[in-house]
Amino acid sequence: MLRPLGDRVVVKVITAEEKTQGGIYLPDTAKEKPQEGEVIAVGPGRVLDNGTRIPPEVKKGDRVVFAKYSGTEVKVDGEEYLIIRDSDILAVKE
Amino acid sequence: MLRPLGDRVVVKVITAEEKTQGGIYLPDTAKEKPQEGEVIAVGPGRVLDNGTRIPPEVKKGDRVVFAKYSGTEVKVDGEEYLIIRDSDILAVKE
Amino acid sequence: MLRPLGDRVVVKVITAEEKTQGGIYLPDTAKEKPQEGEVIAVGPGRVLDNGTRIPPEVKKGDRVVFAKYSGTEVKVDGEEYLIIRDSDILAVKE
Amino acid sequence: MLRPLGDRVVVKVITAEEKTQGGIYLPDTAKEKPQEGEVIAVGPGRVLDNGTRIPPEVKKGDRVVFAKYSGTEVKVDGEEYLIIRDSDILAVKE
Amino acid sequence: MLRPLGDRVVVKVITAEEKTQGGIYLPDTAKEKPQEGEVIAVGPGRVLDNGTRIPPEVKKGDRVVFAKYSGTEVKVDGEEYLIIRDSDILAVKE
Amino acid sequence: MLRPLGDRVVVKVITAEEKTQGGIYLPDTAKEKPQEGEVIAVGPGRVLDNGTRIPPEVKKGDRVVFAKYSGTEVKVDGEEYLIIRDSDILAVKE
Amino acid sequence: MLRPLGDRVVVKVITAEEKTQGGIYLPDTAKEKPQEGEVIAVGPGRVLDNGTRIPPEVKKGDRVVFAKYSGTEVKVDGEEYLIIRDSDILAVKE
Repeated sequence: MLRPLGDRVVVKVITAEEKTQGGIYLPDTAKEKPQEGEVIAVGPGRVLDNGTRIPPEVKKGDRVVFAKYSGTEVKVDGEEYLIIRDSDILAVKE
Repeated sequence: MLRPLGDRVVVKVITAEEKTQGGIYLPDTAKEKPQEGEVIAVGPGRVLDNGTRIPPEVKKGDRVVFAKYSGTEVKVDGEEYLIIRDSDILAVKE
Repeated sequence: MLRPLGDRVVVKVITAEEKTQGGIYLPDTAKEKPQEGEVIAVGPGRVLDNGTRIPPEVKKGDRVVFAKYSGTEVKVDGEEYLIIRDSDILAVKE
Repeated sequence: MLRPLGDRVVVKVITAEEKTQGGIYLPDTAKEKPQEGEVIAVGPGRVLDNGTRIPPEVKKGDRVVFAKYSGTEVKVDGEEYLIIRDSDILAVKE
Repeated sequence: MLRPLGDRVVVKVITAEEKTQGGIYLPDTAKEKPQEGEVIAVGPGRVLDNGTRIPPEVKKGDRVVFAKYSGTEVKVDGEEYLIIRDSDILAVKE
Repeated sequence: MLRPLGDRVVVKVITAEEKTQGGIYLPDTAKEKPQEGEVIAVGPGRVLDNGTRIPPEVKKGDRVVFAKYSGTEVKVDGEEYLIIRDSDILAVKE
Repeated sequence: MLRPLGDRVVVKVITAEEKTQGGIYLPDTAKEKPQEGEVIAVGPGRVLDNGTRIPPEVKKGDRVVFAKYSGTEVKVDGEEYLIIRDSDILAVKE
């Protein structure tokens, strides 16, 4: 399992084929269209200049939208994940 | 529904055709002309270095003006939205 | 009417033809020559890292000088305005 | 009259022909040679992150040296001035 | 032995051939694919603006994932190491 | 005389020909080789974000080494000086 | 002798030929391979925004590793030294 550091979040990307009815459909022509995923693990958050930590605004299980090309792809035990900064997540789908 | 994170705001863009009389008419020739929209949802705001949050200056229902090419387009349940940072909104139309 | 956000200011640009005698005459040859305008509305100001707001140094009715190409042009009810950051205003003409 | 904002200073540039004996003579060949001027008006100064203002280090009447191409030229009532940031002034001539 | 300074960490890179079963397999085609390594030594951490130190989030013996091309390669006593900033480590594998 | 502002320092550059025996000899081939000079005057220092001033680490009369192309050349009463930021001075020769 | 300012450190570079057995051998092919040196003198350290100084993490006599092309070369009394920022030193060899 991956434990993300700082303000990083591990996300399982959801590809278009996996989307349920009523889900988020992305514009086909956009060059940097957002992507959808599920949060698998969150880091402890970033440290402010006054020494306190700000925990990420997302939690495990959240369905999130983020800009394409954010983060770094990692493969663990045959599964592919994305490690992305909390601040690169645009919104939670509720 | 989309719940924006940090200082982000979800906006429903209003295209020129939808504008009411006495509305904002944008210069035709400007290359990066501002756009108009309605605020659908606001995030909790950005965190200052001293740990406090600054809530966005706009609220749900506000008619806002913002520079074109700000933000990221997202489509949810067939409806297209813009996720934009609070600081990229120029003014509220009252 | 437009209510500017943050440290933004709404300015009605004064073109050379409208200037009164004894007004500010700008150098003809300068490539980025300053412009003159009247402040129509001011935002609440920017937020410092310690959480306090710094109100803009200009007020409604001020005659201001600013560098050309600052700000974003907007047209409301047939009138054209400029939305500009407080920090891009160089001086007040008194 | 011009009242400069923030850390800006209004300077009347002194051209080489106007210089008195024993004045500052600038190297002829330097591409970005410094210029000399007289301070006409000073702004209230910049605001630090803790909310206090730092007044400019120069005062009205000071003879100052600054790098060429600093600031913005403005013409008021037929007279040409330079609006320059306090931090772009290199030294006071005493 | 190497004692890293500031927020730096000494890592022994684990190449693909050395990986155990069930380990992290990286995508073959990614141009900047992440790498895996073992933490050998950690620095005291970076100093915040308020003067306190933030110790690195990793400790000796941790199995870490980091973006390729992070850090600087060093060879000591015939062994090759990577000196990398704590903030360039993406996650710990547990 | 020149009174430097902020963290600036007035330096009289010492050219290679003026150097005494046992002085600093600079590498001939270096493209941005350091220079040597004598401090003539120092400014009050820069202002920190908490409002206090940090006086320059050099004083009048110090023999200093600085990177070439730092600062701005000025000529006063026929004498050429360099106005340089305190932070661009590398070391004092003792 | 050279007294470095701020967070600077004077280092005597150790070239490959001078290295003892069991020393640090650098990869031959790396384009920006790290270098090894001995600390000759350290500055008082950099000043934080709250006004306190952070002394360098290295001391006179330390054997240090740093990235090539860091710092500025100076020659004093026929001896060549490197003046480098404390933060550009990667590790101490113990």
